[in-house]
Amino acid sequence: MSERTLEELAGQVDGRVVGNAGVRISSVASLGQAGAGQITFLTNRRYRKLLADTKASAVIVGEEMDCPASQLVVKDPHYAYMRIVELLHGHRRHKATGISPHASVDSSAQIGEQTHIHEFATVRENARIGRRCVIYPGAFVGAGAELGDDCILYPNVAVYDGVHVGHRVIIDANASVGQDGFGFATHKGVHHKIPHLGRVTVEDDVVIGSNCSIQSGALQDTVIGCGTKISDGAVIGHGVRIGPGCLIVSQVGIAGSTTLGKYCVVAGQVGIAGHLKIGDQVTIGAQSGVASDVESGAKILGSPAFDFRPALEAYTLVKSLPEFRRTLKKLDQRLAELEANTKSRQIDSKTES
Amino acid sequence: MSERTLEELAGQVDGRVVGNAGVRISSVASLGQAGAGQITFLTNRRYRKLLADTKASAVIVGEEMDCPASQLVVKDPHYAYMRIVELLHGHRRHKATGISPHASVDSSAQIGEQTHIHEFATVRENARIGRRCVIYPGAFVGAGAELGDDCILYPNVAVYDGVHVGHRVIIDANASVGQDGFGFATHKGVHHKIPHLGRVTVEDDVVIGSNCSIQSGALQDTVIGCGTKISDGAVIGHGVRIGPGCLIVSQVGIAGSTTLGKYCVVAGQVGIAGHLKIGDQVTIGAQSGVASDVESGAKILGSPAFDFRPALEAYTLVKSLPEFRRTLKKLDQRLAELEANTKSRQIDSKTES
Amino acid sequence: MSERTLEELAGQVDGRVVGNAGVRISSVASLGQAGAGQITFLTNRRYRKLLADTKASAVIVGEEMDCPASQLVVKDPHYAYMRIVELLHGHRRHKATGISPHASVDSSAQIGEQTHIHEFATVRENARIGRRCVIYPGAFVGAGAELGDDCILYPNVAVYDGVHVGHRVIIDANASVGQDGFGFATHKGVHHKIPHLGRVTVEDDVVIGSNCSIQSGALQDTVIGCGTKISDGAVIGHGVRIGPGCLIVSQVGIAGSTTLGKYCVVAGQVGIAGHLKIGDQVTIGAQSGVASDVESGAKILGSPAFDFRPALEAYTLVKSLPEFRRTLKKLDQRLAELEANTKSRQIDSKTES
Repeated sequence: MSERTLEELAGQVDGRVVGNAGVRISSVASLGQAGAGQITFLTNRRYRKLLADTKASAVIVGEEMDCPASQLVVKDPHYAYMRIVELLHGHRRHKATGISPHASVDSSAQIGEQTHIHEFATVRENARIGRRCVIYPGAFVGAGAELGDDCILYPNVAVYDGVHVGHRVIIDANASVGQDGFGFATHKGVHHKIPHLGRVTVEDDVVIGSNCSIQSGALQDTVIGCGTKISDGAVIGHGVRIGPGCLIVSQVGIAGSTTLGKYCVVAGQVGIAGHLKIGDQVTIGAQSGVASDVESGAKILGSPAFDFRPALEAYTLVKSLPEFRRTLKKLDQRLAELEANTKSRQIDSKTES
Repeated sequence: MSERTLEELAGQVDGRVVGNAGVRISSVASLGQAGAGQITFLTNRRYRKLLADTKASAVIVGEEMDCPASQLVVKDPHYAYMRIVELLHGHRRHKATGISPHASVDSSAQIGEQTHIHEFATVRENARIGRRCVIYPGAFVGAGAELGDDCILYPNVAVYDGVHVGHRVIIDANASVGQDGFGFATHKGVHHKIPHLGRVTVEDDVVIGSNCSIQSGALQDTVIGCGTKISDGAVIGHGVRIGPGCLIVSQVGIAGSTTLGKYCVVAGQVGIAGHLKIGDQVTIGAQSGVASDVESGAKILGSPAFDFRPALEAYTLVKSLPEFRRTLKKLDQRLAELEANTKSRQIDSKTES
Repeated sequence: MSERTLEELAGQVDGRVVGNAGVRISSVASLGQAGAGQITFLTNRRYRKLLADTKASAVIVGEEMDCPASQLVVKDPHYAYMRIVELLHGHRRHKATGISPHASVDSSAQIGEQTHIHEFATVRENARIGRRCVIYPGAFVGAGAELGDDCILYPNVAVYDGVHVGHRVIIDANASVGQDGFGFATHKGVHHKIPHLGRVTVEDDVVIGSNCSIQSGALQDTVIGCGTKISDGAVIGHGVRIGPGCLIVSQVGIAGSTTLGKYCVVAGQVGIAGHLKIGDQVTIGAQSGVASDVESGAKILGSPAFDFRPALEAYTLVKSLPEFRRTLKKLDQRLAELEANTKSRQIDSKTES
């Protein structure tokens, strides 16, 4: 942990100081907990009321505010917060074991310089691991699998045979990458397992969360595009292709052969059916069920999912269904009364004439 | 396995015997399968019809019933059943390995008395593990992590650096505790990973199911409160605080910074959005989607979720939507007819006058 | 990889050649990617338009088509495709390690001939493993657990004590089989863990996906029936009994004591409540929530789930709820107008008389 003045931090994040530029900052804390020597930030309006009472020495904001702390005004407070956390705290540190004598590394495997392979990790024949990687205990790298530089496999990650992983990829604990997809040919009552010839390709700068399952393609590779981040417990089906820059939140399931374009955001517990084409920059709300193609730029919600705003209105209206039913009944009664009335008038009128 | 008379068991669970108090009981079995020498129980009405035909020597009930077996009448049959299973069968037994020579335990780690660290388990620098713990093969305890007394980590559990775990905590196989949360600062098309400074704090008597993912907080700890039980496949986001005594069922997802109060029950596959405040003793029905704060004592259902009973009625009415549409059409037609009729009468009336 | 003529392949799958029976085929590829020397297949109409442009040497079809490639016409193209992939490519190959000196195998365990136990795998006391099995690194086979012949446990699978696994069972990475179910007796504010006496029985030819959780039964065994296939991330509760031949897709959750009959298909992210009876050959659409018994042969959808076709219509109609509301309002206004009109006519009429 290193200490900086607020001015120095401002220089690093292209910001402007309001207040005491010389105040010394040693760490980052949340708005509610930050004290002297700490910097905090405000990005979520929900927490704005906490600002007046903050005991932090400084606060990162998007615009100048009324606040007891010194302010670091930046265009993008969330990004500045990330940069300052990096500067003051840094990322996780990993044990430097070299290739542990208690790891199992096949003699044909190629291991790059400064890569650490921890105890009880397994690296199989012809696997290739780049430079400065960290393979935690219990992680498995199958035969012929490839990892680029600066990758981290956390404990007990399983990377099956032949999987391709790019540079700077992080895979969290207990994730499974490259198992066969759920493909069976049912014949005379028996589900025959289909050998999967496709692999998984994980491009550069991807994050795969803990307990995720990324299936191998049946014939074509499953692809996780460059810079895409997947949270915990997601399942990506065989042959799925996820474009670059997507954010896939926890417990999402994407069925086989579906493609996602660039910079899609798929919220938690969403399910996407197989063989679909999801365009670029599509946003899918939490728990949605997607059963048809989605055009680029669309923002959808619901199960079944459709345009976000009308969907929000429509799904909220389910609450009114008992009232709708009562209204329908009343309308029917009122109509019946009118009809009876009209009929009697018609009869009257006929009687009259 | 030890044998007891029904009378002895009754003494242990503060119950009353109806029938043969001296009958010897050696084990517990289900209502449908129990035979001579076995005790069974009835807590779910669904299975009441099986009671008349039971071949069990005794049955635990909440009130005296018409039944061929001797009865052990208690206030809380489910609790008495648990106690008797404990007495006659006990909990899982674990291999007493001491600190296995095939485990990897850093010399700076502190390990309490009578703790067993199995082969291929890893305990890192400055980790502290209490007394009478069992660390199964492949489990990982990161640097500086702490476990209290009487904890069990089943095979391949990953406890990341710095996680705090209380006493009597059970974590089932392949669960991941303490990985970074899903936090990225997106800047010029790049999602930058935010270092997570918060830890995970798991309080006493917690159970975490297999394949669960419990994320570290970005700035504040993620907290799993005392006595809370989480079933398999759940994902708890960064900075979530779950109060004491909650029951979180399988595959639940709770997004970042949300807090749950005391004794909440969250049923299977529920999703709760981030930054929400869920009160005490809240019950959330299966598959619900919660997108706003929930008051203490509320019982809610649905996606979006609202009050349980109206929600049950409302979501069940979705089934009637095709009928609603037909009714709307008919009402429109009937109205149109009446309107036409009224118009013609008005014209008639005008013609007349 | 072995090469065959199209005629030879036709002989193996009981098919008829249209075109060049002597063309040599060395591998299988997808319709869009297959080239010379490759065979492809068409089973999904969605991809039919790709057929005209295929560069494959041969294509497997269900009926003769207009197409530049030679054709292999078979009754069941999907099954023929599976068979030909098996013939030309085979299934995954596994490292033949014998019993690795770096595995931990208890001396009381019985290991069948030609079974390979990889490094860092653990096999506990009195476990029995059949012939020709492969136990990958980090996999755990608990005390008294039994595996039949030809089973594969992928890396870091946890098979708890006493679990029974039949022949030819495949369990993918990081799956957990046999942990205690989510059963607690709540008494005076404390959730007491109930010891689980039931085991898990996995019958022959089952596949269990990566990161699945299969809980032990409280009193009766949890049973995964013969030939049933479960995809990644599913959670099967304590005492669930799944009949033979079922297909359980990713992230499905089935709560305790529920039974499924034969040949059910349960699509992705479905949740089934506890203590239910689901009949034979039931199909449940993706994301459905099932809260009551289901008769054999039923095809259901939705949360809550009901008959597939009406459910598809009904859930799609949620989209029309804002329109329904507008219509209800308009009908009310039109009615009010008519009513007012009628009233005034009645008054007129009264005035007249």
